[in-house]
Amino acid sequence: MAKTNPGRFFEDYAVGDVLHHAVPRTVSGGERALYHALYPARHALYSSDEFARGCGLTGAPLEDLAAFHMVFGKTVPDVSLNAVANLGYAEGRWHLPVYAGDTLRAESEVIGVKQNSNGKSGVVYVRTRGLNQRGDCVLDYVRWVMVRKGNPEAPAPETCIPELTRVIPAEDLVIPEGLDFSSYDFTLAGEPHRWGDYAVGEQIDHIDGVTVEEAEHMLATRLWQNTAKVHFDTTARPDGSRLIYGGHVISMARALSFNGLANAQMIVGLNGGAHANPCTSGMTIRAWSEVLDKVETRAPGIGAIRLRLVATSGGAPFRLKGDDGKYHPEVLLDLDYWALMPL
Amino acid sequence: MAKTNPGRFFEDYAVGDVLHHAVPRTVSGGERALYHALYPARHALYSSDEFARGCGLTGAPLEDLAAFHMVFGKTVPDVSLNAVANLGYAEGRWHLPVYAGDTLRAESEVIGVKQNSNGKSGVVYVRTRGLNQRGDCVLDYVRWVMVRKGNPEAPAPETCIPELTRVIPAEDLVIPEGLDFSSYDFTLAGEPHRWGDYAVGEQIDHIDGVTVEEAEHMLATRLWQNTAKVHFDTTARPDGSRLIYGGHVISMARALSFNGLANAQMIVGLNGGAHANPCTSGMTIRAWSEVLDKVETRAPGIGAIRLRLVATSGGAPFRLKGDDGKYHPEVLLDLDYWALMPL
Amino acid sequence: MAKTNPGRFFEDYAVGDVLHHAVPRTVSGGERALYHALYPARHALYSSDEFARGCGLTGAPLEDLAAFHMVFGKTVPDVSLNAVANLGYAEGRWHLPVYAGDTLRAESEVIGVKQNSNGKSGVVYVRTRGLNQRGDCVLDYVRWVMVRKGNPEAPAPETCIPELTRVIPAEDLVIPEGLDFSSYDFTLAGEPHRWGDYAVGEQIDHIDGVTVEEAEHMLATRLWQNTAKVHFDTTARPDGSRLIYGGHVISMARALSFNGLANAQMIVGLNGGAHANPCTSGMTIRAWSEVLDKVETRAPGIGAIRLRLVATSGGAPFRLKGDDGKYHPEVLLDLDYWALMPL
Repeated sequence: MAKTNPGRFFEDYAVGDVLHHAVPRTVSGGERALYHALYPARHALYSSDEFARGCGLTGAPLEDLAAFHMVFGKTVPDVSLNAVANLGYAEGRWHLPVYAGDTLRAESEVIGVKQNSNGKSGVVYVRTRGLNQRGDCVLDYVRWVMVRKGNPEAPAPETCIPELTRVIPAEDLVIPEGLDFSSYDFTLAGEPHRWGDYAVGEQIDHIDGVTVEEAEHMLATRLWQNTAKVHFDTTARPDGSRLIYGGHVISMARALSFNGLANAQMIVGLNGGAHANPCTSGMTIRAWSEVLDKVETRAPGIGAIRLRLVATSGGAPFRLKGDDGKYHPEVLLDLDYWALMPL
Repeated sequence: MAKTNPGRFFEDYAVGDVLHHAVPRTVSGGERALYHALYPARHALYSSDEFARGCGLTGAPLEDLAAFHMVFGKTVPDVSLNAVANLGYAEGRWHLPVYAGDTLRAESEVIGVKQNSNGKSGVVYVRTRGLNQRGDCVLDYVRWVMVRKGNPEAPAPETCIPELTRVIPAEDLVIPEGLDFSSYDFTLAGEPHRWGDYAVGEQIDHIDGVTVEEAEHMLATRLWQNTAKVHFDTTARPDGSRLIYGGHVISMARALSFNGLANAQMIVGLNGGAHANPCTSGMTIRAWSEVLDKVETRAPGIGAIRLRLVATSGGAPFRLKGDDGKYHPEVLLDLDYWALMPL
Repeated sequence: MAKTNPGRFFEDYAVGDVLHHAVPRTVSGGERALYHALYPARHALYSSDEFARGCGLTGAPLEDLAAFHMVFGKTVPDVSLNAVANLGYAEGRWHLPVYAGDTLRAESEVIGVKQNSNGKSGVVYVRTRGLNQRGDCVLDYVRWVMVRKGNPEAPAPETCIPELTRVIPAEDLVIPEGLDFSSYDFTLAGEPHRWGDYAVGEQIDHIDGVTVEEAEHMLATRLWQNTAKVHFDTTARPDGSRLIYGGHVISMARALSFNGLANAQMIVGLNGGAHANPCTSGMTIRAWSEVLDKVETRAPGIGAIRLRLVATSGGAPFRLKGDDGKYHPEVLLDLDYWALMPL
């Protein structure tokens, strides 16, 4: 009996299957410090216990994206080991902050399958839930990946494509219990711009750039216990380069967005995202944002802001797609998310 | 009086000497997070406090190899600063798990000396003990190194070669108090293979590979406060390369072995080990294992498995030595250890 | 309204201004572990809670230089984003150890301005204070930087150059409450040399070297939330190299100085410092020290030692300046500080 994990192939997924992902992980101050070392992350709510208490939380939570990467990493051996491409995200919501001492695990339900017309691969849709030690859901999201078939002769399953919300309605966003921005300290947070200062359609060039190194993206990707070969092994890809985990680009861009969006504190919703072009070591990642929507919430002093976050490997900001509808080659990431901001 | 440490030379060791190594170290969640960032480590007992509690421990301990490296690092200034080669390990046993908050220190007893026939160097055998803040031994092992003489005219000491057990008898392995695998969660652990599923002689290719970077092995080696110049200083070796600490290769191979040996949870014995060929940055480390022995223990649900762990820099798995008895050039490490596994 | 921070220009500073710097930071064991991974730091008081308790503290504090970098990093967006050069430090004092759980913030008072004769830039002097969550000052220091003017037509301010103490008198150094070296364990600390063993004028070559990597200095600089572009972005400097944060060189040199100054435990005063030449990736950093002064203190068993710490990128030790009074090209850092040492 083979002991190693060959990964699942397209024909191994059936709608309704629930995959219980392995290797739970307990979070400590170590993960927080590493996140700050890996990314120029400066959002005050995640940096300072005192600031977080001033906002009604019990302390600074783990960065929302760190929690996302940790959950995502657990799904890789079961979902994307034989993936050809990570196609999209939808309906991502953060339900509970993650604190030092919490232990995360993950499970995914297969919610859709569609064999490709070439008969060699197919698209698998999963809804993944990250759970803490009490079994509470801390975040969930849908992603879909293209997966190779192991046996080309395996019959095509009945096509099932889930209906997915393109944009999470603001009223469905979960605001952490107790969160209160009515005494928000803009000076300590780093910028004076409040929710009311942003206009739908406004674009922000975050200016700063970070040239990425092999050691850094591998440290990050391992920290999330993501085992996809292409990130670590120069022999795994034909050109000998290591593909940088898309989540590394997300975190880098989000951290860079502090400069102009320092008060977009908590990420509570992920509407969608595309890894437009591959990122490799030596590229200098830059970021720009666009305000897509704004909604007040019922929580004290808190507004929701919907943002497009674009990471690029250079060039002028605010360029996204060409006339052919394709992403420009310098675009690495196009992410659509909801954040919470002081009114 | 010279203030810097010139290191000890062969003639400075006498059988019976006890060396009290410097710089105790308190462990926190930071070391655990860094271990996960540096290696693709996924053994659940070390990743999750909850999983560890389900196995009868009070929480997730520091990785056994991290404890080993920390103790080993302390010995470097006293044992191997003038070492020509690290020749071997024997009789390594882990006696107590190390938890966040514990403080480790180390001491070594010289248990053997043998001058080489060239009169310029000799072999020193030490038994090193890692101690916690209560003075309890957390691990001990024997290693022997070839050390230069400082004064070639120094007389040869009486040869004393310690009798060393080639393989630690299973009954001498220390099983942590309270450890109980009778309710072991194979799903969370990541693989279904239990002790009974492995056969003596079975070989496992762990498939995955990690291309190593200078920054990573230096971060790791410094984390263990190992000061050997060859790991850090490109001017210390004639070819300008930095030699990667052998322990980095051990940890990398062990972490890679998760894929096929996810349930070989705790390392409790180190029978021997050879750093067969030097490892340098840019190599892609792979690993394979061979089951050498299996013994049941008296502890609930726990079996001991003796494994050969081989790290390579490429090539086909399962190749170890040529007809001349020498390791193949791609073999980096040949380690013989005991681990605990659910029955 | 532009949302991103353009930084302040010379004409934006007026004597008496108080800048409240953003992004407080809570320290955990993670920062300590990372400090040990980034630098070959071995001073026992910072490595071991037990050792620190034996010296009268409640546990091992965060390294003094880590606290300094954390405070310094917060000042960058307000003080040195448009700086042409970091010119000097003075009157640096550590007032309180920083422990895991403490939250640091920072504020700076402008204490001097002087426009340059070219009319395009000027020198700004600030006194920066690092504060913990109780509002206690944990450290303060003066630094002065050359800053570009944003508007060349802005009128020159009245010149104001603060009087700065060239060397902090030993009686003004703050010795942490309870610190007591009368039962100091020289064996665990790593060297037998006590305060009385050092002579004014004595020079010590610390021997060891570390070849620096891009990934490492970026991890460090981000950890301190220092956002200066030149450290991260290869497109920010004409030659495409990343300038290594001067504080990275300080910490590297201080850590290397363990070999010969293992008992210079706590840094309590920073008299001055010059980043003599730029440091870039690939250089091998070495260090040497010179004893500049020695004073007994009233605290039990504790002497103060004033040290010059010089970091170089190679060459023979003890070379500092040429006949022209300029630093030799291999000199990276010339630092003048006070440390506490057992009598």
